[in-house]
This record gives sequence, structure tokens and C-alpha cells, in this order.
Amino acid sequence: MTDTIGPVDASVNPRYSGIATFARLPRIEDVPRADIAVVGIPFDSGVSYRPGTRFGPSHVRESSRLLRPYNPAQDVSPFQLAQVVDAGDIPVNPFDLTEAVTEVERAATALGEQVQRIVTIGGDHTVALPLLRAVAAKHGPVAVLHFDAHLDTWDTYFGAPITHGTPFRRASEEGLIDLTASCHVGTRGPLYSKQDLEDDERLGFSIVSSEYIEEHGVEAAIDRILTRIGDKPLYVSIDIDVLDPAHAPGTGTPEAGGLTSRELLRILRALRDRDIVGADVVEVSPAYDHAQMTGIAASHVVYELVTLLAARLAS
Amino acid sequence: MTDTIGPVDASVNPRYSGIATFARLPRIEDVPRADIAVVGIPFDSGVSYRPGTRFGPSHVRESSRLLRPYNPAQDVSPFQLAQVVDAGDIPVNPFDLTEAVTEVERAATALGEQVQRIVTIGGDHTVALPLLRAVAAKHGPVAVLHFDAHLDTWDTYFGAPITHGTPFRRASEEGLIDLTASCHVGTRGPLYSKQDLEDDERLGFSIVSSEYIEEHGVEAAIDRILTRIGDKPLYVSIDIDVLDPAHAPGTGTPEAGGLTSRELLRILRALRDRDIVGADVVEVSPAYDHAQMTGIAASHVVYELVTLLAARLAS
Amino acid sequence: MTDTIGPVDASVNPRYSGIATFARLPRIEDVPRADIAVVGIPFDSGVSYRPGTRFGPSHVRESSRLLRPYNPAQDVSPFQLAQVVDAGDIPVNPFDLTEAVTEVERAATALGEQVQRIVTIGGDHTVALPLLRAVAAKHGPVAVLHFDAHLDTWDTYFGAPITHGTPFRRASEEGLIDLTASCHVGTRGPLYSKQDLEDDERLGFSIVSSEYIEEHGVEAAIDRILTRIGDKPLYVSIDIDVLDPAHAPGTGTPEAGGLTSRELLRILRALRDRDIVGADVVEVSPAYDHAQMTGIAASHVVYELVTLLAARLAS
Amino acid sequence: MTDTIGPVDASVNPRYSGIATFARLPRIEDVPRADIAVVGIPFDSGVSYRPGTRFGPSHVRESSRLLRPYNPAQDVSPFQLAQVVDAGDIPVNPFDLTEAVTEVERAATALGEQVQRIVTIGGDHTVALPLLRAVAAKHGPVAVLHFDAHLDTWDTYFGAPITHGTPFRRASEEGLIDLTASCHVGTRGPLYSKQDLEDDERLGFSIVSSEYIEEHGVEAAIDRILTRIGDKPLYVSIDIDVLDPAHAPGTGTPEAGGLTSRELLRILRALRDRDIVGADVVEVSPAYDHAQMTGIAASHVVYELVTLLAARLAS
Amino acid sequence: MTDTIGPVDASVNPRYSGIATFARLPRIEDVPRADIAVVGIPFDSGVSYRPGTRFGPSHVRESSRLLRPYNPAQDVSPFQLAQVVDAGDIPVNPFDLTEAVTEVERAATALGEQVQRIVTIGGDHTVALPLLRAVAAKHGPVAVLHFDAHLDTWDTYFGAPITHGTPFRRASEEGLIDLTASCHVGTRGPLYSKQDLEDDERLGFSIVSSEYIEEHGVEAAIDRILTRIGDKPLYVSIDIDVLDPAHAPGTGTPEAGGLTSRELLRILRALRDRDIVGADVVEVSPAYDHAQMTGIAASHVVYELVTLLAARLAS
Amino acid sequence: MTDTIGPVDASVNPRYSGIATFARLPRIEDVPRADIAVVGIPFDSGVSYRPGTRFGPSHVRESSRLLRPYNPAQDVSPFQLAQVVDAGDIPVNPFDLTEAVTEVERAATALGEQVQRIVTIGGDHTVALPLLRAVAAKHGPVAVLHFDAHLDTWDTYFGAPITHGTPFRRASEEGLIDLTASCHVGTRGPLYSKQDLEDDERLGFSIVSSEYIEEHGVEAAIDRILTRIGDKPLYVSIDIDVLDPAHAPGTGTPEAGGLTSRELLRILRALRDRDIVGADVVEVSPAYDHAQMTGIAASHVVYELVTLLAARLAS
Repeated sequence: MTDTIGPVDASVNPRYSGIATFARLPRIEDVPRADIAVVGIPFDSGVSYRPGTRFGPSHVRESSRLLRPYNPAQDVSPFQLAQVVDAGDIPVNPFDLTEAVTEVERAATALGEQVQRIVTIGGDHTVALPLLRAVAAKHGPVAVLHFDAHLDTWDTYFGAPITHGTPFRRASEEGLIDLTASCHVGTRGPLYSKQDLEDDERLGFSIVSSEYIEEHGVEAAIDRILTRIGDKPLYVSIDIDVLDPAHAPGTGTPEAGGLTSRELLRILRALRDRDIVGADVVEVSPAYDHAQMTGIAASHVVYELVTLLAARLAS
Repeated sequence: MTDTIGPVDASVNPRYSGIATFARLPRIEDVPRADIAVVGIPFDSGVSYRPGTRFGPSHVRESSRLLRPYNPAQDVSPFQLAQVVDAGDIPVNPFDLTEAVTEVERAATALGEQVQRIVTIGGDHTVALPLLRAVAAKHGPVAVLHFDAHLDTWDTYFGAPITHGTPFRRASEEGLIDLTASCHVGTRGPLYSKQDLEDDERLGFSIVSSEYIEEHGVEAAIDRILTRIGDKPLYVSIDIDVLDPAHAPGTGTPEAGGLTSRELLRILRALRDRDIVGADVVEVSPAYDHAQMTGIAASHVVYELVTLLAARLAS
Repeated sequence: MTDTIGPVDASVNPRYSGIATFARLPRIEDVPRADIAVVGIPFDSGVSYRPGTRFGPSHVRESSRLLRPYNPAQDVSPFQLAQVVDAGDIPVNPFDLTEAVTEVERAATALGEQVQRIVTIGGDHTVALPLLRAVAAKHGPVAVLHFDAHLDTWDTYFGAPITHGTPFRRASEEGLIDLTASCHVGTRGPLYSKQDLEDDERLGFSIVSSEYIEEHGVEAAIDRILTRIGDKPLYVSIDIDVLDPAHAPGTGTPEAGGLTSRELLRILRALRDRDIVGADVVEVSPAYDHAQMTGIAASHVVYELVTLLAARLAS
Repeated sequence: MTDTIGPVDASVNPRYSGIATFARLPRIEDVPRADIAVVGIPFDSGVSYRPGTRFGPSHVRESSRLLRPYNPAQDVSPFQLAQVVDAGDIPVNPFDLTEAVTEVERAATALGEQVQRIVTIGGDHTVALPLLRAVAAKHGPVAVLHFDAHLDTWDTYFGAPITHGTPFRRASEEGLIDLTASCHVGTRGPLYSKQDLEDDERLGFSIVSSEYIEEHGVEAAIDRILTRIGDKPLYVSIDIDVLDPAHAPGTGTPEAGGLTSRELLRILRALRDRDIVGADVVEVSPAYDHAQMTGIAASHVVYELVTLLAARLAS
Repeated sequence: MTDTIGPVDASVNPRYSGIATFARLPRIEDVPRADIAVVGIPFDSGVSYRPGTRFGPSHVRESSRLLRPYNPAQDVSPFQLAQVVDAGDIPVNPFDLTEAVTEVERAATALGEQVQRIVTIGGDHTVALPLLRAVAAKHGPVAVLHFDAHLDTWDTYFGAPITHGTPFRRASEEGLIDLTASCHVGTRGPLYSKQDLEDDERLGFSIVSSEYIEEHGVEAAIDRILTRIGDKPLYVSIDIDVLDPAHAPGTGTPEAGGLTSRELLRILRALRDRDIVGADVVEVSPAYDHAQMTGIAASHVVYELVTLLAARLAS
Repeated sequence: MTDTIGPVDASVNPRYSGIATFARLPRIEDVPRADIAVVGIPFDSGVSYRPGTRFGPSHVRESSRLLRPYNPAQDVSPFQLAQVVDAGDIPVNPFDLTEAVTEVERAATALGEQVQRIVTIGGDHTVALPLLRAVAAKHGPVAVLHFDAHLDTWDTYFGAPITHGTPFRRASEEGLIDLTASCHVGTRGPLYSKQDLEDDERLGFSIVSSEYIEEHGVEAAIDRILTRIGDKPLYVSIDIDVLDPAHAPGTGTPEAGGLTSRELLRILRALRDRDIVGADVVEVSPAYDHAQMTGIAASHVVYELVTLLAARLAS
């Protein structure tokens, strides 16, 4: 597929120049057709602690200017294998959580008709629910591989059934998730009670915690993950707080004891050949970032996901 | 009134020690009775741009540790003239704007039955509406002296009638405001259209803009303000973004060309002898602050307001 | 001129959403014709101290999201009076100062054929020279109104005749400047020797220093400026370091004792009805900024300039 | 022990609301009795390089708002097993090091009569000496498990025998330490001379250095630590600079090449069933922290210690 | 006096290169004789709130790299009129306040025998007392012109008679101060009680407060200052917190409502022809600074003082 | 060699006092002879993304104040084994890349005649080329051990053959490098195309990537490195961006997934007994650093290199 339109040429336009799109890729309206869309959801009305992820998409875009077109770790040139585009942002109502969730679902569904795969940049984790609705409507219940410091399977908070702490409980209840193949990775830190873990298991998740990775190593974790997800249609949801605050200070509910960015990238690369049908990278809160380190980690994560998707679409 | 309980003694407990209350004053539950309450509303669900004011009250408290008990600029020892307390925070629902507004009104009304005067630390400017409802229920329509870079008399935004851009339009419509005696101070920066100004005048406000102050000086501004507000029961609402971003970077919708903290303090001191029935200081967003400069400015502003209230109550 | 295309509608797309153009205006390629172009020059190879202005244009764009379409200080809706666009960035060679200067001149000349007026966002002050060349080629020698902490009329530095410290000496030598009508505003801080001032006067500039403004006030300064520039075709060049470091920390050669953003905006507004033929706002270095305060000041300055240009074009 | 009073209910009072106590636990004066007290010592008069730990206790409290009541890594709900409280700060003289040390000893002794176990938040490491005096007075010489980048067994500095570089030399000389069971963990970086190591061994410490952990892994380190400390009464002293500056920038004498927060938490959890009789977490200097990452790491460390203590007390 | 050795040549060594001395001047050991010495006192053991001024001297030096040799505001080339040098730092005991004060006095006296005039960079304000002792021993009681947000005439704090809050009370008691000619400038913010003001007057100070300057203007303030100090031998002591936190966030006890750096520089320049016998610039705390704005303000203040001294010595 | 002059005595001059040289070592002009020189090159004209490394040398010096004279990890007191000095900065033209490269080569050659070994603090990676020229002129082609996130073997960029992305291609072409013994360590992140890797191999480099280290561990990496470099004369070039952005945010082209400082120090220590003939540590950009964490990492890296050199010279 040699006819794709790639990023702006850095030998003519320095990387720091020009209006920022993800990886300096073309906007969706500037190409005849697109295979993979990176889209932002600037939104943080569902957060329970530090807000600010409404600025996440523009921050990740600005932090992605250094991404180059060949991924040596996977030996793939993703922007050649598929037409990858920046589809801009989905505008959502900041004052009405319910309406916002509806808007995301509608927009993601519409975009899903234009392109084959979507990688979303949040926004807070609330958006995973409408994204899963859109994906499940197309692909049926999906295995969810969920990277996060937190379970995100809580019930309600202040009477709100849909917040950034609840998307996977709601998704499980709605039948969007394959209960035999879903998995949290990197969870850690205190919970409300042991019941949280019991509920979580009932909702269809197994857990590869951060403590597990510390004790058994990344390779063992990858084995467990791959076994769990099998070859099901897979949705990958990455809360950037799966990384340690040292690697991702720019997030809303940081917990000590997390993964390094190197570990996260390694696990993601192990997903090659899996049937990823959608993905999100959420909870980047720029006001708490420093020198774009969180934004850069997030942009590399999006880039690995796009590489996986492009390689699979081209295979 | 020599029987008040004042701040923690700094010659025994260094200023950086101990749990932070406003000015290291006693908590409301630790005194037999209270005249003036400083209360926080950690809330930012009504913001249209940078969020984060949910952390405003704790930030202003931490920034108020240096406040001492005698105010030489007014020659008043406010904590001797009245029992001033920290009433903690009003907890509000972060996910439901309408419910939050109701909760603030209910809590402010209840607190208003315990104490004579309340100074509120926001939170975003949305809270001014329920606070005005509580005040007007007790005192009737009030003159509003509103310090802000913005008019805050817009109509709806994303269909939401009550946000941080609309409290004074709603208050005017609800008859909470004295239409002959209200005034914006320090407004500046671009608007949507000239209609904004026309609407604003119809809603009962005159304007002493930042440009006016630059051209005519603070003394002229004070004259216009005092003439406008007369001797009506007065509600003072201070959006910290009335200050220039140089003085208050830690806020959500900063506009260049604002007031200095020295000018703001001077204008406030000119309100001595006025019948202030309530006040708020809002829109401090700590994630954007540096070295507490915004928090310190806000804490000094609260302190001047408390001084005015205490002197009046004691007179 | 009601057929202009204005900024993205903030009631549909929140201000923090979408790809950042200046004031969320259309890009030049998205409109049929344009009157006024805002264009960036990401460039800092000419700086003698702190670099980083290559990130200036994208920072000012991100900082301009709050700008609304009606300017009450001038009672003008600039985006209605003229088609204002974001023309993106002029890409320039970061490794060859001479080539870069040539590229800017060429690009500015070409853009000048497409639109009537250009406001440039730097980039370091080196770019003023090729911009003046392009302007003078079209309009003849121009009065230069130069806001800066520094004279920028030094000779060579490390053998380089064209750096950010020399544009106005070179411009004067090349006959681009009206020697009877040019003026520095806001200069301050130490010089190399008294000779600097003598050279400067010979090169055609009078000086309204920051000390003058402190002692005599802004109104007196405006009188002197307006008298000096007369009704000549006017180029306005604004080094953001004319502001005090309190107002503009994000710059490369900060000097204490500068202007406030309120003073600068006031002086600019006094230029209404003058024949401004070009303008630049330079030396914003984001790595040293905090909470976008420098970026916001710069974006307001650009906005005032655009307002002046639009009002004049429409008159 | 189901009658304990736990943290403020986060489903009524959002985590960012209310006055900050550690983990939003009750203050000691608000409960009838307490088992475990978390207490701050705002103090930095003993530091040799960057000061600022006088703000450590309030910073760790603000950073502990996210801690929830169930610790899944240890499968313990510490606040149910024991009444845990925040005992506020021990006020100490900032101008007289000797008096301050006396004050800490006196206050810690008094508090030790009220509660069974104390976890102290520093303050600089000077406080370990009076804390060890208070502990040894009650329990006899204790094994010291000391996490730090530095040995802290230097002799005098500027003639001062008690500073943050000397507590364990003094403690050893005073017979407070079990010379057969004490251990440094995580030391690294340059020393004054080889004599430092020889002195240190003589004073009763073995060393599990950061280099050892890098080469042999955390499991080997845990084995060595557990063997060394045996089942002696144990005092755990954690200088937050045992973490790498990437994980804990907010400290006074940072050294490259340290532990991750994940490693530190793992080692701490291995102490379950040991007889911990006291603990401190010191040297958090907030002015150098970013986005509370150091404060969060420290708060998790305190939480693990409290969990260990509560589980042991309940067993 | 054309034989002085000036700063490093910036046309050979770029300003950002080389080891930092004040204004890139020679070190005292590198010149045959010196007239004016700039010396640092890295010290903060006397502070009551935020520490960190021990890093003040190196920060001001790094922030002084842009200073050039001709001062146009005074039309003086100070480094030509006098041999100005950087005398390095006076090393003082960080653990013993009393000894430190003695060390400063001894070192300042010794340096005063080598050079004619000293400008000290703090360090906290405690150092003013031993500096005044050294000056008064040479010149007799001096008029003190004291720029500060605070009176610094408190009595004792935690039993310590000499801290950064007490130097001028002690100096007055010791007869070091001319009681008829001393003056505070820029004080503001709350005090402990009205007694503070009464004590202060008795100790020999009149007050030109920040509020006075806001109401009456800088020119009136200068008149009052010059009248007060007369032609007495003058010691100028400048706490950088006399500036507003917007201009000087990097300090330990910031108070809203202060001076701008432009105002401070103007007042200082009005001291030309006065007999300044010593000066200090204290309380710069770099950990709270941003982009060197406080350091730059302080370096300009030192530069104005050096200019005044050089001009007077040469007259 | 007991007659060396070591660092300033920290028991007399506190570590935060005095003018900063590397590790508080003597300046080259203050010792009779020197064996090892640490020298800075403040330079960033060759960077393609974030600039600022012109402030690298002074930042690393300020960050090196805590280094003490005994290195326990290597059991070496380097400043006793050899006379180590700070040779200041090599001043280079910021406006002419070609001239700057010539200046560096000339100065490094001259310094190489004064001392036996040089460790350079950059500046951007461009400087590696002239440094290699100087080294190869003395020692012949050298094995290059290159730590970096990037290959730095690109060809030209904007027509410039010598930039921070090309030093090792040019060096290979010029025959300065031993093609059988050179190696990149820690590379990661996207490339332009697979051709980059092919070119790189042809230019004489093998690769121990960051992904390799993640999968196989540091010990395996060390084995590969030692085998590759053999006992050839070795030049060690360390781009600080080999560290993860969590460990080194203060750099210009950060890539997620890097090494920890602990890993880097371990690999360096494995070089003991190798014949290191020169070394550089480059790309520290202080404007992006936080709390000196990058500066401290760099200073420790320089210290390990100096230790290796001193031990070898003394053996």
C-alpha cells in the first residue's frame, strides 16, 4: 500500500513547525480515504480527583511531533501499510455527563463507518464505555485488555452510574465484554474493600497486578495476558496511570509503584497478530505533566497501537 | 469582644506546622459560637476552560498560613472584633451541576443560620448563584460588586443555564440583584459580540473596566464604585482572574491586562463602612499556580473581606 | 463584510478542543480569500542567550484559544470586518542563519501578495529584518514602532551581521526605515556603552524608555509616540520582553523593570487610525513560560494588532 | 475490631474536599482511643544541602487524599484492624537544633504513652535520633532497618554532633541500636572516604546497597534483609531519597541510581509478621516535588507501614 | 580610572558560558586591588517560613549573566569608575545561628578592610545585623533605608533573639542605627498587633508603606524617603519580598500587594549622591523562583546599588 | 599520588556555597598540572528539536555540588589517584555551525596537550565529531561506545552535514572510528526507515537497544558490549537521552522506554580496566529539567567516567 499520505516531511518543515496533528499525519479531511483514525475526546467531567484531561488530546498531539515513520521494535512502517489520519476531536458537552456519553457513542459509531480502526486519545476513562458500545455494536462482545492502576469497575459515585471509575462495570453489565478473556494489567494501590476484587472477578476480569509484574517479571505477565485474551476480538484500553508517577506525573489519580514506559511498550508489542478492534489511551492531564514526559509516553503508546493495527490490517 | 478564639499561636506552633485551616483559625466545631465563617466549595463542574478549582479551598488555606491577626491597612484586629472560624468545605456532587447548585444553596442557607456572615472560597464562579439565592432570601435583593475579567452574564452554554459564565444573568432574572446598584470591576478582553454589553446593562450592571482603571486611575474607579453601590446591602464576588495573569496565573480563564493585587486590595479597603452581607473569592486553580502566588493573593483578599465584615459587625 | 469565515463555534466545539489555529480562525487554505494573515516563524538560531522561540508560534496558538470575536476596548469585531486567517508557519533552516533570513523574506513576500496585511509570530527578533525588507519593497521605507527591552541596533556579534540583536541597524543601513519617524518603546537595562545610544539615534530612532513611562506615565508616552510616528506607513515590532518578567517570563533575554501587559495593550490601542502595514510579535520562548501567561499576553497583543488592521482596512 | 473510626466517607465528601489529615483519618482528639498514630515533625534545621522538609508533613497529608481503606497487596484493611489516627504535628524550635531534638524526644515519648505505635512523617533525618531514644526507652535496643541513599553515620558537621547526617552514629553510640541486626538498604553514591564504610560497620550496620539490588535483584535483597533483622524489635527508618530522583525529586540530597517506588513497596511488604515498634518516613521537601509524585510515594510508604503495624497488632 | 578589569568579554565568551561570577566580573583574588565587592552569604537558618535562601547567592550570580557594563538610567559605567569584584561567599555554620552571626560580622569586617564598599547577596535577613555591626564599627550609627514587606523589628521568636524577623530591633538596641533617619519602604500585610507599629517607631523607623505608594505615587514616596534619610551615612537593606509575589515569587514570606521591580529601581536611582556605606539584597529563595525572574530582579537591584556606589566613589 | 588538590573542603565551605566548578574541584588555572580535565561546551546550534543545551555545562556544575571524593561502587578515590580539574568552558560561535565545530576541535586538541584525558559536558551531540577528531589525531581510530536513544548516524538535515544527528556518520566516513568495535547502547523509538539501520551497520556500529536490555537484562547487555569493544582505545559518548524521560526530562529529543540511571551507572562501571581515551556527556537541556534530576544524573555519569579514567591512569 504505497499510496498512503504520510506525515509532513521533516526535512522541509522542522518538527517543531506547523499545526500539530498526531505524528504530523494528515487530517482526515485531507485524504481521500483512511484506514486508521486517531481521534481525541477532550473531556474530564467524569473524574473523581484531579481534572484536566480535557486538554489531553492537544497535549498528546504536541508531544507526538518527534514520532518518525518506521517502528524498528516491530519492524513495521505503519503509515505505509495503512492510511493513518488524525480525525480531530469529538466535541462533547462538558456540563452534562449523560449527554456527553451519548455524543461519544454517536461520533465513534459514525467514525467507525469511515475507517476500519480507531485509536482514541482521552479525555478521562469515562469514554471507554461509549467506545466499547460502538465497538461491540460492530464486533460483538470483545476481550478487554485494560492497563490501569485502578480496576474501574466500581459501581456508582455520588449517584452517577457512569464516571471514570465505572466504565468496565457498566460495559460488563451491558454485555459488551467477553467475560472469559478480559484482563486488568498494572493495577495497584488501595481499594475500598475486598469486595471490590470479588465484584471485579464476577464482572469478567482477571488481574495481572503491578505487584505480580514486580515479583514475576514482564515475561510471565505477557504469558498470562496472551493466554487470557486468546484470539478474541480485542479492545485495548490504556489509562496512562498504569505507569508509575515517575513516568506519568500528568494524570489525575496517580498511585506509586507502577510500570515503566519500557515495560508497557514491551507488553503492547507482544500483542502483534492479535485482532485488535479498537483502543484508547486516556487520563493524560497536562497541567500536571512536566516537559511533556507523560505526553511523550502516551504518544509512543498510541504509536505502538497504530503499528499493531496497521500490521494486522496489512497482513 | 475579647473572648474570641484566635489563630493558633505562632510562637508555639510554627506557621508551617499543623493542619491547615484558613489563617490557622479554629474550626467551627471547636468554638462555642461564631460570627463570621470562611467556608470552601471545592467544585469545578461549571468551568468552560481550564478546570481545577476543586482544589481551590485547600490551596487557599495552605497559602493563608502567614496571615497575622492585625490588619494595619484598616487598623483593625478582625479576629478580636468577631469570632471568625473556618467552617470547612461544603461537599458537592462533582457529576451533576444542578444538584451541586442545590446543595450549595442548602448548605449556605444552613450555615447562614449559624453565623452572621459568610465568606466563601471557590470553586468556580457557578457557586455565586446559589450563594446569592441564600443571601437574597435573608436580605432581599443585593447590590453586587463583581470583580472579574469577564461579565459572567452570558446566557447558556452547551444548553446549560447555570455555569461559571452565567451566575449573574440568572441572579438578575431571579430578582436577587439590585439593578440600580450593581457593578463589574476589572472586566477586559474580547467578548462574543457587542450584544454581550447591551444584555449586561439590561441585567443591572454598570462597568468599571480594567481599561478604565488604566486610563483614569484607581481613585476614580473607587469613586464610581462607591457611588454606584451606595449604601445598599452589598454582596462582593471576586473572581481571582480580575488580577492580571502575572499576579494570578492559577486560574482557569486568564486574560492579559488585569489589575495588580495592590490595586484590588486598595479598592476593597475603600468598602469600609458598607453593609457587606456576603462575599466570595472564586476561580483559584492551583495546578496553574506558582509558589502559591495566586493562593496568597486570594488569602489576602479573603482577609480584607473578613476585616471589613468584622469591623462592621463590631461597629 | 458579513461573508467572512470566523473562528470555530465555541458553543459546539469547546475552546479546548480541536487543532489549534490562532484564535481558532480558519487556515488560509480553507477560505477562498484572505485579508489579514497571522503567520508563524518557528526560529531561534539568532538568539544570544536563552533559545526556544522556535516553539513560540505553536505556544501562542495554544494560548489564543480563549480569544473571542468582539474587541470591546476598540469596539470592533475584527473577524467580521476582514477575513482573518492563520497562514501556518514559514519553515526555515535551523542550521544556516543566512539562508533562514532569505527564506523568511521570500515567504513573507509571497504571502504579502496573497493578503493585504501580515502579523507575524516569532521566532526570535532576527526575523524583523527580512520582514521589513518584504514590507519596504511594497510600501517604501516605513516608520518602525519598536517595543522592546533592548535597542536591537547592535552591530555584529561573533562576526554575524544578522542576529536578534541587530535587525534595526541592518534595516536602517538598508534604507528600509523612515529615520524621522521611528521609535523604541520600553527599553531599559544595561548597555555595552553610551555609544550604543549614540549609534541608535544616528540610525533613526528616538526612545521612550521604560524609565520614562515610570516617571511620566503612559499618556505622556503615547503622546510622544504618536507625534514621532506621525501618519507614516507604520511597521509595529513587538519583542515580548518589553513586558516585565512578571508578565512575560517566557522569553530569552528578560530585564527587570518592564511594562505591564495592561500598559502595552493601552499603547497599542492608541494606534487606531494609523496606517499599519505590517507587524510582528516575537521572542516568546515557551520553555520559560508558566501557565501560558506569556503566551496569553502575546496572543492578546496579536489580537489588538489584528483589530487595528481590520478596522483600518474596513474604514 | 469493628468499632474503629475510619477515614471520611468519600462518597459524601469528595477526596479533594475537607481539611487534610493523613488518609483523611480522624484526628487524635476526635476519637476515644487510638492504636496507631501518624504524626508529623515539620523540621529542617539539620539539613546540609537543600532545606524544605519543614513543609513535608502537610505535603504528605495533601498527597494522601487518594488512599483507600483496603490494602490488597497485603490483604488487610488496616483502619478496621486498629484505630489509626492523625496526631497532628510536633511543634519544634526552628532556631535551636539541640532544643528541637529534646522536644521531639519528649513529644514522642508522651505520644507513645497514648498509642501503641507511631509512624512519623519528617522533617529531616535528624528526628530519627530522638525517635529512637523514645522507642529504645520503651523497647530496649532495636534493630534498625534504614532505607536511604546515604549512611547517615557521619560524625560531626560544622561542629554539630546531631544533624541529618549523623542520627545512626549517635544512636549506635548511645546503645539504642541492636548492633547485630541493623541494616542500610539502598545506599549509593560517593562518600568522603573508605573510612566511612569501616566506621559504619563498626557502628552495627550491614549494607544492602542500591548497586547490590541492581545486580542481584530485589528477592535476594529481601532475603539478606530478613536474615539480618531476624525477629528483633524493629525500627524502620525511610529516607525518601532511597528512591531514585525520578521517583522522588522532592528531597534534599538526591543521588542518581536509586530504587523505584515499586521496589521499595515490595521490600516493605516482606516485613509482614515482623515486630515493628516504630517507623519514620523523612526528607520529603515539597518545594522540589512535582505533581506530588514524591508526596504520593511517601504516603504509600506510610500506608504500607501502617498496614504492617495494624496487622501485627491485630494478630 | 580606566585601569579596572571589567567583566568577561561577551563577544568572545557567550554570556551563558563560563563559571558564574556576579555580572561576570573578576573574582577578588584575580585583581590587584578592589573598590567594591559583591559578596554572598549562603544562609537560611534564621527563617521563620519557607527556607532556601542558602542557594540565593549562586542563583543571583547565574541570573546576572545578562548585565552589561553601562547603566543608561544613571548614565554611569560602574565597572570603569571603580574596580568591582565578586568576593565569593562567606561560609557560615548552618547549624548554629549565633556562631553564624559572629562569622558574618568577622568576615564582613575583614572584607571591609580590603575594599571600600560591600554589597551583600543573602541569605536571609538575619545577616543584616552582623553587616550593620561591621558597618557601624567603621562609620558610626547609620541611617537605614529598609525595603521590605515586613518591619523586621520583632523581638524574639522561639526564644531566639536574632532571626530574620529581628535584625533592625537588635541593631537599634545596639545603637547601630541613626534613629532620626531610618525608614522602611514597601511594608504591607498583617502584623501581630498594633504594638508592632508602636515598637517600630520607638526603634527609630518611619514607614513609607506599600499602601502609601499605591495611594500617593512613587514620586511622593521618594520625597519622603530623601527627606528622612537626609545626607547621613546610609545603609540600604533590600528584602526582595518588597516586590510583589508577581515580581519575586522566589522568596520565603511573600505578601500580596507589593512593589513592581520598576518602582523599586526608580526609588533606588533617586539615591544618587547619597553616601551609601553598605548594602544588602536578601531573601532570594531559588526553589520558589520561576525562570529566574526573582534572580534577575535581584541582580538588577544589586547592579543599581553598585552603580550608585561607583559613581559616588568616583565623584 | 597524594599531592593532588581535591575539591573544596565541605566541612568549611558548605556544599551550596561558593562558585560552582564540577564537583567543587579546582579550576585548571589554579593547579600546577592536571591529569584529567572536565570541560564544558555550551552549545546548541546543532539541535533539531528542543534547544537549550548551551546552558548544560553550568547546570551540570551546579548539580554536581553533592559529589564526594570516594566512589564506593568502584572502591576508588579518583581525585587522589589523579589531578582532576575543571577546565571551564570552550567558547564557541553560536551563529556559525561550521566555525563552532572547528573551534571545538582546536580547543580540544590544545587541552589534550595539557592533560591526559578529557571528559566533556555538552552542549549538543554535534560536539562529538570535533572531539573524536581530536582524539583520533592522538590515538588513531577509536572504538566508540555510544549511549543514546538515537543512532546519530543520519546523513544531512536541511543541507547541513554536521548536526547533532550526524556526528557518528561523519566520524565513520572520516575514518575516526574502529568499525569492528563500536556500539550503540539504549537506542529506541521510531526511525525514518529501515535504511537507517542498514546504513548504521555499514558505518561500523552494532546495537544493544533499549528493547534488548528490557528483554535480556543488563548483564547480557554488558557481555555484548564488552565483547564488542574489546580492548581497543575507547571513546565513550553519552547522550543523556539514553535515560528514560522519567530520569532525564531535561533533554531535547526525549523518547519513552529508556534506561534507568541505575542501569546506566552499572554498565559504565563494567568498563573498568578498559582504555578509555576520551568521553562526553551531552544533551542536558536545563530549561526542561526538574529539581536538577537530569543534572544530577549527568553529574554522576561524569563522576563514574572520571573514576574509570583515574583508576586506569593510576594503574
